[in-house]
Amino acid sequence: MSADYVHGYHEREAQRLQDQAATLVDLLHGDTSYPPGHRVLEAGCGVGAQTVALASRSPQAQFTSLDISEDSLAVAREAVARAGLDNVTLHRADILALPFAPGTFDHVFVCFVLEHLPQPAAVLRALRRVLKPGGTITVIEGDHGSTFFHPDSAAAQRAIRCLVDLQARAGGDALIGRSLFPLLTEAGFDAVRVSPRMVYADASRPGLVDGFTRKTFTAMVEGVRPAALEAGLMAADDFDRGIAALHRTTAAAGVFCYTFFKAVGIEPAA
Amino acid sequence: MSADYVHGYHEREAQRLQDQAATLVDLLHGDTSYPPGHRVLEAGCGVGAQTVALASRSPQAQFTSLDISEDSLAVAREAVARAGLDNVTLHRADILALPFAPGTFDHVFVCFVLEHLPQPAAVLRALRRVLKPGGTITVIEGDHGSTFFHPDSAAAQRAIRCLVDLQARAGGDALIGRSLFPLLTEAGFDAVRVSPRMVYADASRPGLVDGFTRKTFTAMVEGVRPAALEAGLMAADDFDRGIAALHRTTAAAGVFCYTFFKAVGIEPAA
Repeated sequence: MSADYVHGYHEREAQRLQDQAATLVDLLHGDTSYPPGHRVLEAGCGVGAQTVALASRSPQAQFTSLDISEDSLAVAREAVARAGLDNVTLHRADILALPFAPGTFDHVFVCFVLEHLPQPAAVLRALRRVLKPGGTITVIEGDHGSTFFHPDSAAAQRAIRCLVDLQARAGGDALIGRSLFPLLTEAGFDAVRVSPRMVYADASRPGLVDGFTRKTFTAMVEGVRPAALEAGLMAADDFDRGIAALHRTTAAAGVFCYTFFKAVGIEPAA
Repeated sequence: MSADYVHGYHEREAQRLQDQAATLVDLLHGDTSYPPGHRVLEAGCGVGAQTVALASRSPQAQFTSLDISEDSLAVAREAVARAGLDNVTLHRADILALPFAPGTFDHVFVCFVLEHLPQPAAVLRALRRVLKPGGTITVIEGDHGSTFFHPDSAAAQRAIRCLVDLQARAGGDALIGRSLFPLLTEAGFDAVRVSPRMVYADASRPGLVDGFTRKTFTAMVEGVRPAALEAGLMAADDFDRGIAALHRTTAAAGVFCYTFFKAVGIEPAA
């Protein structure tokens, strides 16, 4: 699988992902825990931001966390060690060529991964192969098209659209969150249930304003500035107006909304 | 206050509002109840869709429900009688000229009203006058800009935009949901807390697909077709493509998302 990851792999990005994870952990993972002894495959663990949240919530489950990037795995290994977790094994592997026998896992967990892959349906089918009948898959993805804010700004909307367009050019889909239900259903999972998780940030929630609106979302959009300008998607001053408008949503009278989607499905009995 | 209500007052609209209320009652009102003996002002009760939900949840509180339209009040009176409620008094009144002494009410409730009014800040200040110190205000509004769906459709987005533009021409704001926090805060309410309430509808939730996506939201957009065409906002075939695309989101692989916002604030102690 190509490593054409739109956000890049540099250190600031790793920090951004860690910040995001800390702020969003409860919203996204509060209702996920796995029974003692169960085997869980985390496919696409990246720098381990979700791995730590996941494995520390289910200390007696056994996690196998994979990523295609050795650099990300190195950061993930440190995060897992720092958290004192002994129930996580990290491996380099291609999500479309999983080195496991059929039915190896009781559960599969995929977070912020499908949005970057050109063939999410093929990935879901590959994951089904290593899942036991009756086992669960949990998929969490964002949806940049779910973003809206006050004060509204056409330039900010265009800057966000740059991120969507660049991700599409890299073979991904930054609007994938809204389509998890048909994706999992069409891949053959049973009893698919999707729940939206909106991050709503106003001045009464300063932690979310800082941790999510400013340091996660706006930083992410700002991060594609060079690529967006190089691709001619926006003029520099227009893009910068968009970023300034996103920062305005972090002021006392500002509001910012973004929705993640969490889907759970079941591998059919044979 | 002008009766330039974008949705019109005909019977089908009344039915649409009743359907909407039935589907959304728990999502919007499940966490609102008032203590025995407390006096609650419902400002802008319309056809009584929310009145019944509200008053039946707090049978020992006393509701005073107002609207500017005698036709709407007649429908509301029937709805209240049909529900067997004896704790609601209905009056015709202008929300900017409330016929009550200062501090008359323990609570104020406003639902789907501010979005239609040209001066929401003035309305909030008028409501503060009749609220006791320490009393609460609850405001619920939609936000048409929160809408997104799968499959996506530019024509559907344009058709929704017609509704937003027509509502703006009538002096309203169909994007008001996202700005409840600054609106209430700037009007002087204390401890304002906003919670988003997303309606997420896919094939696993057929009641919401039918009751909300089809019969509430798509019907509402369809309802402005004559006005949108007359105003030259969209060509007829483009508008109809948009409506067809909204109906496609109700198919087995479709998904529809819309967010309401509920704000609660407190009238400061004198």
